[in-house]
Amino acid sequence: MSSTHTAYQFTRSEAYNRLRKLAYNPFDLTAANALTPERIETFRAGACGFDLLYATQRIDGPIMDALAALAVETEAQEQLREVMAGAVMNRIEGHESENRRVLHGASRDVFEELPSPMDCARGEDAIANARRELDKLREFTARIESGALANAKGEPFIHLVNVGIGGSDLGPRALYLALLPFAKGGRRVHFVSNVDPDDMAQVLGGLELSRTLINVVSKSGSTLETLTNETLARAAFEKAGLDPLKHFLCVTGEGSPMDNPERYLASFYMFDYIGGRYAGTSMVGGVLLAFAYGADAFTDMLRGAREMDLHALTAPPQENLPLLAALLGIWNRNMMGHQTLAVLPYSQGLIRFAAHLQQLDMESNGKRITRLGQMVDYDTGPIVWGEPGTNGQHAFYQLIHQGPTIIPCEFIGFRHCQSGQDMTVQDTTSQQKLLANLLAQSIGLATGQASGNPNKVFPGNRPNSVLIAGRLDPYALGALLAYYENKVAFQGIIWNINSFDQEGVQLGKVLGVKYIDHFKAINGAEDTPPKDGGGDPTGWALFKAAGVV
Amino acid sequence: MSSTHTAYQFTRSEAYNRLRKLAYNPFDLTAANALTPERIETFRAGACGFDLLYATQRIDGPIMDALAALAVETEAQEQLREVMAGAVMNRIEGHESENRRVLHGASRDVFEELPSPMDCARGEDAIANARRELDKLREFTARIESGALANAKGEPFIHLVNVGIGGSDLGPRALYLALLPFAKGGRRVHFVSNVDPDDMAQVLGGLELSRTLINVVSKSGSTLETLTNETLARAAFEKAGLDPLKHFLCVTGEGSPMDNPERYLASFYMFDYIGGRYAGTSMVGGVLLAFAYGADAFTDMLRGAREMDLHALTAPPQENLPLLAALLGIWNRNMMGHQTLAVLPYSQGLIRFAAHLQQLDMESNGKRITRLGQMVDYDTGPIVWGEPGTNGQHAFYQLIHQGPTIIPCEFIGFRHCQSGQDMTVQDTTSQQKLLANLLAQSIGLATGQASGNPNKVFPGNRPNSVLIAGRLDPYALGALLAYYENKVAFQGIIWNINSFDQEGVQLGKVLGVKYIDHFKAINGAEDTPPKDGGGDPTGWALFKAAGVV
Repeated sequence: MSSTHTAYQFTRSEAYNRLRKLAYNPFDLTAANALTPERIETFRAGACGFDLLYATQRIDGPIMDALAALAVETEAQEQLREVMAGAVMNRIEGHESENRRVLHGASRDVFEELPSPMDCARGEDAIANARRELDKLREFTARIESGALANAKGEPFIHLVNVGIGGSDLGPRALYLALLPFAKGGRRVHFVSNVDPDDMAQVLGGLELSRTLINVVSKSGSTLETLTNETLARAAFEKAGLDPLKHFLCVTGEGSPMDNPERYLASFYMFDYIGGRYAGTSMVGGVLLAFAYGADAFTDMLRGAREMDLHALTAPPQENLPLLAALLGIWNRNMMGHQTLAVLPYSQGLIRFAAHLQQLDMESNGKRITRLGQMVDYDTGPIVWGEPGTNGQHAFYQLIHQGPTIIPCEFIGFRHCQSGQDMTVQDTTSQQKLLANLLAQSIGLATGQASGNPNKVFPGNRPNSVLIAGRLDPYALGALLAYYENKVAFQGIIWNINSFDQEGVQLGKVLGVKYIDHFKAINGAEDTPPKDGGGDPTGWALFKAAGVV
Repeated sequence: MSSTHTAYQFTRSEAYNRLRKLAYNPFDLTAANALTPERIETFRAGACGFDLLYATQRIDGPIMDALAALAVETEAQEQLREVMAGAVMNRIEGHESENRRVLHGASRDVFEELPSPMDCARGEDAIANARRELDKLREFTARIESGALANAKGEPFIHLVNVGIGGSDLGPRALYLALLPFAKGGRRVHFVSNVDPDDMAQVLGGLELSRTLINVVSKSGSTLETLTNETLARAAFEKAGLDPLKHFLCVTGEGSPMDNPERYLASFYMFDYIGGRYAGTSMVGGVLLAFAYGADAFTDMLRGAREMDLHALTAPPQENLPLLAALLGIWNRNMMGHQTLAVLPYSQGLIRFAAHLQQLDMESNGKRITRLGQMVDYDTGPIVWGEPGTNGQHAFYQLIHQGPTIIPCEFIGFRHCQSGQDMTVQDTTSQQKLLANLLAQSIGLATGQASGNPNKVFPGNRPNSVLIAGRLDPYALGALLAYYENKVAFQGIIWNINSFDQEGVQLGKVLGVKYIDHFKAINGAEDTPPKDGGGDPTGWALFKAAGVV
């Protein structure tokens, strides 16, 4: 990372100050005929099968020019190129930090035929690792599909339980649920993440264990929740007279405490240059997606992600989907002052996609220290949340339309359904009803509606974008995943923060262990802290108040 | 509703202005020894098996006194009593509005032996209706359980698919998922809500239709998504050679277009005085919960809700759990200026509880007009979101700990797991690990942590509460549901808004229909609007940009 980049200060940049002035007069979407056909055509861009429509944001030509200038001034694309080229971008200058490369992009850089726009050394080891693991996965999947790899009775495996938490759960789960109609051979994936013992009990209770694989996922090989759940699962298999070695897989870092082939039927590797929340295209996503949908579908997903990466690196700002999304987000966050972002997919397949984005965005950009170790004097990552439409329309959209607090919205839609099982009811298909609602909400939030009844007034000027593609298939899903990964990376670069560490999450682990020690003392397994609360009166008082001692 | 109540203005009240002054010096949780055992004991209250610990909020004695004074000045409990007594509280004075009573409380007022603290007429009809429907449900469930009601081959029904949206989906789904270990006879409930045709295809694709009941839920009997999905489901049954009349139930308003016994095996009623988001304890929650868990479990849930209602009406402010929660929320929202609220249950059973609360809270209090029809000049309902812990700790807690934006948190926990299937790993049980993490996060967010490395500093003073009970069983779930319903009602009363209408959601329905008409024109089913975009150039331009024409 060149110090030129990090020395830049967001609020002192020329473009920032231009934008501050423009923010006194954001575009008024509620004015008569504000949303002309010309405006809708002007503020759109397309790539990788997606169209981004953002005429319903409070922007105009000069604002978009200034936002593009912000991207240029911060060298956003050059910095993203350095990320993908293997520079050590996960660091805070002058302070102890992770000091790692950020190469999740390499996990999809497996296509010889796709152009490589980069001219510098970029972690060839990472690309080689990705290709080797993908080959291992292809072979493993082929053995499952052919029946060469089966249970002790020779029956095929039909269930896989993914045991992981955080990035080893949210992203893979969101991706898996997005592709259910593509399932092969009746194979199903299930998820256990929570250390709540009811989670494992509920999932295993419903499965034929003899035909089930358990995939334990932890980069460090030491995640408390995951190791605990692995122990619960091994006990359940042993109780059922099944040999865990014939049923347990793992995805872990090479050389981690879990990297022990004698305990697993198969092991796949992830690497220190891939953060958990960016692991969807690594083996963390790969093993379960290839099990359920086949290695070809997983590879299609990688292709979508790779093509979106290339688009992010090369397209000019005003044609660049993830960069446009990043800039519009900065407009809403730093200039319009909105704290949150609702992501509203009109697609049942994306039912858990917002939960993945919560981690991706909030863990990456929920930061208050710049890459130079200084406190920010501006807002960084928004609070991201959302549920699929049209469901949300019957619930929290009330506040989005009429609450005093403005919530920028990102709608996601598809022209066609996944299953092909649709029918015409009252002259339209269900998919048409879904799309009609999406488009109507986008317009309605923007333009508002007058009424003589104050309770029926819709103030409008609620900024939103629509991202739309043909059909939610593996390629589109990969492109969508990388769209958001690159959007978040661009925002982190422009805010000059390190989007790739997670010290706040690390603290949680330390705090948890300390309080677990209290329970060990209660259980008599440790002498300290003493039962009178000696070293930590606050902790013991809380335990007493909570009725756990 | 007496005009005395609505004439009150939040920002002109004496307590409001006292609180504004106190807000200059909120309690500093990061000061040395701020969280003493005495403080933890002082700021707690208990009822219905729950303890609320709120020493980790930025409050002190004088602030709590002023908040209690706010409740007294606004006659919050007297107004809640009027709600439950059957006053027409769903209205805006001087303007056309729903003008309805708000009597979801009556749906659990079915216990002769529980004291009735009310001395005025309170909708005896609503109580009679609730008892009649509950008796019908008991009889229906008994017939399912005995096998008297079975499919054409005499086999018992083991699946029920709930077809509804909004309040006919989110609340019932959250309640169902919260009680899985209580399932009886292997019966399971599934949910279809979205008009996305992939939703129905995915759910029906996995079921043995001949042993499946479909429960169609719509108060109005005219909800577009639900009627469309009912049509899809009826087609699937007919295609499978099954008679829908033997498989389809409904929950609807008496006299609605769906209220036609000739089309349903059984019909249950809901009423215009119960809002969708408050329908969990009506037949909307009842039919599916009694199917899965038995009528006794559902009745236990009603008892928990009823006892929490009575507590909300009678306990003094500083001992009143839902009122304390409401007041602390107002402190954080209006005095500390926080826009959002994270609800973080450390219980896998509560996996969709935050999604229910999103509707309950944001649809109720996402309002900008007072009950007198005037614009508010203060913030109302927060943006509510959340996911279960410990999962979130590995994801978005990064921003909660270290982001520049402060997010108040409500933790929910239980001392014991539901399943009883737990084991000791490394000297503690899973449930102990879960609780240790919850309590550690509560303390860590409050007190923060110093460090010489700016990236490892945790600023603290992040306000939060802990709500804890023994075990998540039907009674506790009912009490928890009513805790939040009454919290939201108290806040709406204090903000002087109508928490019981949803004009913003109504607009969405109107907008959707308009855009569906565009698709009808595309399909050739209607002549207007003309294909050149005649009457609505914006809509057609958006359709073109989105590639759907």
